[in-house]
Amino acid sequence: MAAYDFTAPRLHVADDLVPGAVLPLERAQANYLLNVLRRGPDDPVLLFNGRDGEWRATLAQSGRKSADLVVREQTRPQTPRPDLQYLFAPLKSARLDYLAQKAVEMGAGTIRPVFTRYTQGERLNVERLRANALEAAEQCGILALPEISEAVRLPVALAALAPERLLVFCDEDAPLSDPIAALRAAADPAAPPPLAVLVGPEGGFAQEERALISARPNTVALSLGPRILRADTAAVAVLALVQSVLGDTR
Amino acid sequence: MAAYDFTAPRLHVADDLVPGAVLPLERAQANYLLNVLRRGPDDPVLLFNGRDGEWRATLAQSGRKSADLVVREQTRPQTPRPDLQYLFAPLKSARLDYLAQKAVEMGAGTIRPVFTRYTQGERLNVERLRANALEAAEQCGILALPEISEAVRLPVALAALAPERLLVFCDEDAPLSDPIAALRAAADPAAPPPLAVLVGPEGGFAQEERALISARPNTVALSLGPRILRADTAAVAVLALVQSVLGDTR
Repeated sequence: MAAYDFTAPRLHVADDLVPGAVLPLERAQANYLLNVLRRGPDDPVLLFNGRDGEWRATLAQSGRKSADLVVREQTRPQTPRPDLQYLFAPLKSARLDYLAQKAVEMGAGTIRPVFTRYTQGERLNVERLRANALEAAEQCGILALPEISEAVRLPVALAALAPERLLVFCDEDAPLSDPIAALRAAADPAAPPPLAVLVGPEGGFAQEERALISARPNTVALSLGPRILRADTAAVAVLALVQSVLGDTR
Repeated sequence: MAAYDFTAPRLHVADDLVPGAVLPLERAQANYLLNVLRRGPDDPVLLFNGRDGEWRATLAQSGRKSADLVVREQTRPQTPRPDLQYLFAPLKSARLDYLAQKAVEMGAGTIRPVFTRYTQGERLNVERLRANALEAAEQCGILALPEISEAVRLPVALAALAPERLLVFCDEDAPLSDPIAALRAAADPAAPPPLAVLVGPEGGFAQEERALISARPNTVALSLGPRILRADTAAVAVLALVQSVLGDTR
């Protein structure tokens, strides 16, 4: 957690961010700033577009329901998208929203839905996933836009991983063992490889899926402890461990 | 994550659990089993009461809206409540529900709300916290009922901690450093002390609060990485690290 100005709202915009630019707000954003957050003329707003870093802008109200933002100066340079892929079996319900938010919050750069044998449902609203990932980036000060991949079946997802990428596989049937030691044994923390994490559906993986995953070189199975974790909880837990051993929380 | 029968619903009941006991279901539980989950006669249900371990029961329907459970045999012995306290500043909104669920999922035995200088709001629905903690226990196969403490102010919460209890303090202003190394330096993983974790409000701690916390012996400040984490995310991240270094995920 980094010290951060929580008082200025933070918005993603599509426009280029250059000093003096005047950006008309979309109706929903104007309503959010003016009526929900009750911001007024000259109040600061932080902007990012995934390319130009973060900029301070000020609000110029032009009506009760419309406003412009005037871009002032850059507050942070652009950061690259983290090379950490989060692969997961889609879930039903609001937990999928949380899962996307939490994976982004914990530093995943790519969110990749993967259909498995026991995946609940075969339909997935990719736009909703994207909106949730973007909301997490807005709220948590992340400047690179997370990539949302199209959903694919497990064998396709595995084949798409470069051989040098370490796949951390959260296996609910793995014997209880020290996850930190397992991660340290799988890669050199001093020169970590690109990373991917795979978390399965509530029903776990089928035997042939588990065999397929285990047959991949550069793959480590991780136990997340003696308790059953829901998928959105597992996302945070495994990413906290991966980031602390091999990622940017060291 | 442990292998577990996800197909049998799991319910907390107040009654003693002994073979042959017949337990009438509350109306809401009957509706949930019969009409939401569409379970019928002789279908299995797992029961726990926080005292007698986990038992398999079978459903005996007595009407469209009422049913009994017949207790059959014990499936798991009672486990003790984890001696891990989770102290947190209450938040507004649904995130508080998630926070309580996630702390319990990650193995906190005691949930203790703590009012700080920058806590949002001073009202707290303790019954709602308890219901969320219980729901997490039901869904995640946890047999000990989490304790929900009354909310107290930070100095009172600190004074209530036994001196030998290690307090892990998530400090968003702590310099970025290796959280695993910090935890290992704070206590001997081979003989870990009782644990408490403290996560502050979104606005962070006031300077005098930070001084008060740091003055406590047996306290370690932890950085959770370069990103801003929401309180329910921080709960899972810090508990994943604490459980992996000093707790039951080793």
